[in-house]
Amino acid sequence: MAKALNELGALEAVKRLQRRELSAVQMARACLARIEQREPAVRAWTALDPAQVIAQAQALDAASLRGVLHGLPLGVKDIFDTHDLPTCYGSGIYSTHQPDSDAAVVALCREAGALVLGKTVTTEFATYQPGPTRNPCNTSYTPGGSSSGSAAAVADAMVPLAIGSQTAGSVIRPAAYCGVVGYKPTFGRVSRAGMKLLSESLDTVGGFARSVEDMALLVSVLMGDKRLRELPEVSLPRIGMLRTFQWRHAQAETREAYEDAARRLSRAGAVVEDIELPVQDCSLVQLHADVMAFEAAQGLAFERTRCRQQLGTRLLALLDAGAAIRAEDHQERLTRAALARARALQWFDQYDVLLVPSTTGEAPFLEQGTGDPLFCRVWTLLGFPAVHLPFSSGPQGLPVGLQVLGPPHADYKLLSTARWMHPVLQGEC
Amino acid sequence: MAKALNELGALEAVKRLQRRELSAVQMARACLARIEQREPAVRAWTALDPAQVIAQAQALDAASLRGVLHGLPLGVKDIFDTHDLPTCYGSGIYSTHQPDSDAAVVALCREAGALVLGKTVTTEFATYQPGPTRNPCNTSYTPGGSSSGSAAAVADAMVPLAIGSQTAGSVIRPAAYCGVVGYKPTFGRVSRAGMKLLSESLDTVGGFARSVEDMALLVSVLMGDKRLRELPEVSLPRIGMLRTFQWRHAQAETREAYEDAARRLSRAGAVVEDIELPVQDCSLVQLHADVMAFEAAQGLAFERTRCRQQLGTRLLALLDAGAAIRAEDHQERLTRAALARARALQWFDQYDVLLVPSTTGEAPFLEQGTGDPLFCRVWTLLGFPAVHLPFSSGPQGLPVGLQVLGPPHADYKLLSTARWMHPVLQGEC
Repeated sequence: MAKALNELGALEAVKRLQRRELSAVQMARACLARIEQREPAVRAWTALDPAQVIAQAQALDAASLRGVLHGLPLGVKDIFDTHDLPTCYGSGIYSTHQPDSDAAVVALCREAGALVLGKTVTTEFATYQPGPTRNPCNTSYTPGGSSSGSAAAVADAMVPLAIGSQTAGSVIRPAAYCGVVGYKPTFGRVSRAGMKLLSESLDTVGGFARSVEDMALLVSVLMGDKRLRELPEVSLPRIGMLRTFQWRHAQAETREAYEDAARRLSRAGAVVEDIELPVQDCSLVQLHADVMAFEAAQGLAFERTRCRQQLGTRLLALLDAGAAIRAEDHQERLTRAALARARALQWFDQYDVLLVPSTTGEAPFLEQGTGDPLFCRVWTLLGFPAVHLPFSSGPQGLPVGLQVLGPPHADYKLLSTARWMHPVLQGEC
Repeated sequence: MAKALNELGALEAVKRLQRRELSAVQMARACLARIEQREPAVRAWTALDPAQVIAQAQALDAASLRGVLHGLPLGVKDIFDTHDLPTCYGSGIYSTHQPDSDAAVVALCREAGALVLGKTVTTEFATYQPGPTRNPCNTSYTPGGSSSGSAAAVADAMVPLAIGSQTAGSVIRPAAYCGVVGYKPTFGRVSRAGMKLLSESLDTVGGFARSVEDMALLVSVLMGDKRLRELPEVSLPRIGMLRTFQWRHAQAETREAYEDAARRLSRAGAVVEDIELPVQDCSLVQLHADVMAFEAAQGLAFERTRCRQQLGTRLLALLDAGAAIRAEDHQERLTRAALARARALQWFDQYDVLLVPSTTGEAPFLEQGTGDPLFCRVWTLLGFPAVHLPFSSGPQGLPVGLQVLGPPHADYKLLSTARWMHPVLQGEC
C-alpha cells in the first residue's frame, strides 16, 4: 500500500511537489488531517491556522517553483519569530506577542518555498518548564525538551521537517526520545536573527526529520549549502566511540545501543575504536552548565528583572544563580572551553566522526520533566555539529539511539557519514 | 567655572547621583536642555520623549539606589529593542515597530539604574545608508556610522554614555570621527539578545564615553564585570605598533598621530615596537567583507526576500552578493579567519596591547557617506577587543586618534592599559 501523504519523507514529497504530481494543498491537507486526528493526544502545536495554511498552499501551487522546499510543510519551534503567526517563546509573558518579521531561518525556508504549517511547542524560553506536548510513541512519556513540539510533530508524521534549537540538549534529546533524526549544526554557522536568544556561546539552530537525507535537505537551506542536497557516498569511515565521563548515568538500553552499534559498524567494515576524553575534560558538563547560567542571566535580563513573577521557579533560580557568577570566573570558563575544543579537535586527525550517547536512556514519564541533557552538554559547549540517529528501543518500547559528532564546519562530511551509518545501525545492512 | 551638568563625565555624575547631591531629574533636564539646543543641528536622536524621561527620572529619585548607573542618562542605538520606545533599525520597514521587551544590554543598564534617554540614529540596519546625524564638531561632516547618533550624542555632551554596535567599524569609526572613546568588547562576551542581528560571526555590542574610566563603567554593566569599576594602575606597558597592510590608505593626520603616539608612549617609558602582520594575513580585509556579505544575506533574509523595494541600493547589492556566495567558500573563510586569529594571538606573548589606526583620517564630508571601516575590519573579524582613543586632529580641525587592541577576554587589562595610555597620547604626561 502506498504511504499516506503525511508520512512521505521530505525528499520524496518535494520530488513529487516539484513535478507537480502532488500539490501543496494536498500535502498540507494530509498534514492538517493528521494533526486534527492526533493533536488532542500529542499537543505539539501552539499557533496553527488551517485556513491560513491552505491559502498559502494555494498561493504556492499557483506560483512558479520557488526552491528546493517548494510546498513542503514545516514546523517551527515557537522561539523563532514569524510575521504571520504569534510567537510566545513558551512563556505567558509573551502570550500576545506578534512579531513584525520572520526569523532568518524561517525566511530562508520560505525563500526555498517551504510552507510554515504552524509554531510548535517549546519549553519556557527553551529551558525547563515543559509545555503540553506528549511523546507520540506513548503519551505517558515526555517528548523531551526544549524543542518538544518540533520533535513530536515530525515523529508523529504531522509534518516532514521541523526547526528547533539547542542550548544544552534541546535538539538531540527530543529527537532521541521521539525516535527521529535530530541535527545540531556547527555553532555559529546558522543565523540566529529573530530567535529568542538565551545563551550567546551555546544557542544553536537545529532541525528534525525522519531520515538523514531529509535532514540534509533542511540543513542545506538553513546553512545555504547546496552540496547537502546530494550527499556523497562514504566508504568505511573511521569511528571513535566515546563513552564519556557520564557513562555511569547510561541506562541499560543506552549501553546496549552502544555495544550493538560497535558490533554492527565494525561488521559493516568501519574502523571502530573506543576512545577516552583526557582526564582534564572531566568537568566539561559542569562547565557548560555554568556558562549557560551566566549567559542566560544576561540574555533574559529583561525578563529576570521585570517579569520575575511570570518565570518558572527553576528558570528563575538559574537566572539568579547566573547573575551571581563573577565575570572573571565566566571568562576563565570560556577559555577552558576553548582549550578543550582544541584538544577534542585532535580526535578528528584519527577519526572521521565520534559516536557517543545521546541520552541516559529512553524517555522518562511526563511527570518527571523533559529529561536530562547530560550527554549533550559537552558537545554543545564545544560547538561540534551533532546528529542523532534512532535505531533501537528501551524496556518501555520507546526509541533509543546515539549521536554522531564531527569537528566544526564538517557538517557536510558528518551528514554524509551519518547517512552511511544509519542503515547499518538499524541492522539493514 | 563648574562644568554644566550635561558635560559631567559618567563617573563624576554617578558619584553625585549616588550621594543624592544630584538628582536624576536635574541630570536628565540638563541633557534634555542640551538636546533641545543642539538637536536641530546634530540630529542624533530618533525616539526621545522628554515627558517619559522626566517621569522615569522622578521614579529613580524616589527609589532606593538600583546600581552603579543609578539615574545616569544613556543613549541607545536604534537597533536595540526597547519595550517603551519604538525601535526602527534605521529602516522604513520598521517605522512603526514597537518591541515588547528590552534588548539584554538595555535591561542590564536599566537594572543598574540607567535612564534610557532615547534611541539614537543608526544607519539602515547598521550598514550603509546614513541617517540624518551630523558630526557635532562640524556639521558639514559625517559623524561616521553605523552608530552615528550614539557617537554624536556623547561627543556633543547630550548624554554621558551611549550603546552602539560594530560589524565592520561601526563603533571605532564614529568614535574616531566624533572624538570620543569607543569600545568594542571581545566578540561573544556581551549578549546580543534583542539586537537586530546582521552577521553572526561579527556583530558586537559596544559603547561610547568621553573618557576611558567612563567607558569602563558602562562596559562593567554590559559584561557584568565588577572589576571594571576600578581599573588598576598599569606600569609601562609593552606596545606593539602595527601599520597594517592598509597603511597606504592612511592620510597625513593618521600617520602623524601614529608617529606622535610612538614618540609620546616611548618617552613615557612604554616599550614601543613596530611590528608587522604575516604576509598570509594580507587579505583579511576582503575576508571580513566576504564573511559579512554571506552572513548578512542570511541574517536579513526576511527583508531581502520580502521587502526588497524598501532596502537601500547598496545594502540590497551586498545582500544579493552574499546570497550568491557558496557555502564551501564561506566555510573556508571562517577557517582561515580562525587561523589568522591564532597567529595574531601570538603577538600578545610579547606585547600587552597593539596600537593601530582607527580610520584613514578625519571625518569625510557628509555627502561622501559615513567613511571607510578599512582599519577596523580585521579586528572585528578576529574578535579582538578594541578601544578608540582620541588625542589629535586633522587638517579640518576634526578629531583623530588610534585604536588599542587586546586578545579575546583581556578586556579588563586592555581598558586598564588604555587608561594609562590616554593621557600620555594627549600629551598630558
